[in-house]
Amino acid sequence: MSNSVKEGVVLLSGGLDSATVVAMAKAEGWRIHGLSFDYGQKQRIELERASALAKQFELSSHCVFRVDLGQFGGSSLTDEAMDVPKGRSEEELGQGIPSTYVPARNTVFMSLALARAESLGLRHLFIGINALDYSGYPDCRPAFVEAFTALANAATRAADGGPPYEVHAPLLHLTKAEIIARGLELGLDYGLTRSCYESDEAGLACGHCDACILRLRAFESLGIEDPAPYRS
Amino acid sequence: MSNSVKEGVVLLSGGLDSATVVAMAKAEGWRIHGLSFDYGQKQRIELERASALAKQFELSSHCVFRVDLGQFGGSSLTDEAMDVPKGRSEEELGQGIPSTYVPARNTVFMSLALARAESLGLRHLFIGINALDYSGYPDCRPAFVEAFTALANAATRAADGGPPYEVHAPLLHLTKAEIIARGLELGLDYGLTRSCYESDEAGLACGHCDACILRLRAFESLGIEDPAPYRS
Repeated sequence: MSNSVKEGVVLLSGGLDSATVVAMAKAEGWRIHGLSFDYGQKQRIELERASALAKQFELSSHCVFRVDLGQFGGSSLTDEAMDVPKGRSEEELGQGIPSTYVPARNTVFMSLALARAESLGLRHLFIGINALDYSGYPDCRPAFVEAFTALANAATRAADGGPPYEVHAPLLHLTKAEIIARGLELGLDYGLTRSCYESDEAGLACGHCDACILRLRAFESLGIEDPAPYRS
Repeated sequence: MSNSVKEGVVLLSGGLDSATVVAMAKAEGWRIHGLSFDYGQKQRIELERASALAKQFELSSHCVFRVDLGQFGGSSLTDEAMDVPKGRSEEELGQGIPSTYVPARNTVFMSLALARAESLGLRHLFIGINALDYSGYPDCRPAFVEAFTALANAATRAADGGPPYEVHAPLLHLTKAEIIARGLELGLDYGLTRSCYESDEAGLACGHCDACILRLRAFESLGIEDPAPYRS
């Protein structure tokens, strides 16, 4: 394993956050391997966006991995019978764990990123989680990053030596507006990303789900129009 | 979530260890949901044995989940181009991490067991890892169990309340012979299990891979014949 090359695996969802993480890492000179998941999400456009971003950023590799969390159920992001919440107020957004939480999703995704990294002989993982706007999700908090890092170093060849695994979560303590401002500085075209939980078949965002509300509010606070297409 | 019913998710491989864990849990009155993985292993008979064991033990549910770790490579258990080591001596068995290690496999499997458990509203996970005979694998050690338990409680709804996740690894400090003795006491038919890394198409074990050596040596030390079929 070479320590001189900065090289790691990034979880790439096709959304705003992970795209910003890739832009930041590339600007810092990292070689990046992208990992996206077909996990049974209703939003199929995510994967198309992830592939477009992988190409745009000239990633060293990009793997779309199939892991059907939808078969376990329990989330409105995967279950056709559950509706994604719409038009929630500021106050409602801050309350509890929403139905869009997918049980243990980031744990599963990071475990697979760890498997990918260990297979490649790499010890750096990147994830675009953000505790401020998504603190409802337990697997988007600082305690998750700490616990996963400890696990990675106990569960793999790193337990027997070499550099320890590092989990990079550069957006953890940023607001959505700060994330977008950072990406714009780096020349990221957010028109390539999609955040909506209920895009239509043409890829137009709904404008009313939690993800759209947080995204639109952040662009608005910056006085910039979101370049992603909306249907309303 | 009910605390009165003892109910959990067990990783069921079709091998000797996980079958013993199920026998032990059932004897203690647990309701058990089995989770097996089609992860690209060359040994397809494992999954057939796992299903037979699920039926035998009348599990509350049994899910065979597809997660193709083979596409990441790096292990002789999944890569056709890599040979499984054969005929290794006692001393060689104890040295380093063998090529049969699958990068981050138990981390991925436990993460998926966690997703399954959280979807079912359960907070107990069972795994048949064994530090004495497989201490070469980092994800079979006590430190792995501790780190995964901490992660489970940081990464899920358990972070916000309710009983904490518990990871049961009842074989962790037992020798292979002690495991078999325990299973035999409970009436487990080890003829239903298969441990070999290179069974043939008829399901006959090779007798010479690490898994066969450890298994045969344990039965021999108990003065009992292994009821599983061998080709040599």
